[in-house]
Amino acid sequence: MATITQTSSDVLDDIRNANQNFEKNFASGNAQGMASLYTSDGMLLPPGSGIQKGSNAIQNFWQMVMDMGITSAHLETVEVELEGETAIEMGQYELSGANGQRLDHGKYIVIWKKEVGKWKLDKDIWNTSISS
Amino acid sequence: MATITQTSSDVLDDIRNANQNFEKNFASGNAQGMASLYTSDGMLLPPGSGIQKGSNAIQNFWQMVMDMGITSAHLETVEVELEGETAIEMGQYELSGANGQRLDHGKYIVIWKKEVGKWKLDKDIWNTSISS
Repeated sequence: MATITQTSSDVLDDIRNANQNFEKNFASGNAQGMASLYTSDGMLLPPGSGIQKGSNAIQNFWQMVMDMGITSAHLETVEVELEGETAIEMGQYELSGANGQRLDHGKYIVIWKKEVGKWKLDKDIWNTSISS
Repeated sequence: MATITQTSSDVLDDIRNANQNFEKNFASGNAQGMASLYTSDGMLLPPGSGIQKGSNAIQNFWQMVMDMGITSAHLETVEVELEGETAIEMGQYELSGANGQRLDHGKYIVIWKKEVGKWKLDKDIWNTSISS
C-alpha cells in the first residue's frame, strides 16, 4: 500500500486551494484552466447528459455551461476523507449569473487523485437541491 | 492503517450482492429494507432536495419515490475502487414504472463503508442523463 505522506488537514488545504482555482477559472471564463484541474482520465458526471471523460470533453462541458450565462461557481467543502492517494470530498455548490443572481444550488461528491504530486479532480458528480 | 483483508474482486461481489438486495427491496416496495443497506449515518444526496441523513430519512425518501409510481430500480456497477475500509463505486441506474416503462436513467457514485463486517452504502449521489 502507498504510504500516507499527508495529514487530512494538509489535504483539506490543498483541496480548498484547488477549488479556489476552479472558482477563479470559472469567473474568468477559462474553461481550459478548469479542465486542467482534472486528472488526465478525469470524468464529469453531469445532470442531463452522459459521462464526459478527458480534458477536451471536460473543457467543452464547462464552456457550454458558461455559454448558458452562468458566470460564477461557489464551492464549499463539507467533508474530506483521505484514503491513501485518494480523497473523497462532499460539498455544496452555488451557480450564479451575470447580475449575481443565484441560478442553482446543490451538492456534490468529488473523488480526488494525486497526479504528479498535485491533487486533481478525478470524478465529479453533482445535482441540484431545487425541486423541479 | 487498516489492513486490507479483501481483494478488489471480493468487494465487487459483495457490492453486486448488496445492489441486488437493493433492487429486490425496491421491487417489493420495502423502503425499510432499502434503508437497512445504508450505514447508520448513511446519506442520500438526491436530485431536487437536500441531503437525507440516517435510516428514517432514507426510508422516507425511498417510500416517497415508490409512492410516485416508480416500481423498480436496476443498478449496473461500472467501476469499484477499494481504498482500505472504503470502496468507491461508479455505476449506472434505470428506474421503471408499473408497466415496465423506463422512467429515468443516469449515473451514480456510492461511497461504501464496512460496518460490522458488511459493506453498506455510506454516501449515495446520482443524477439523470436525460436532458431537461
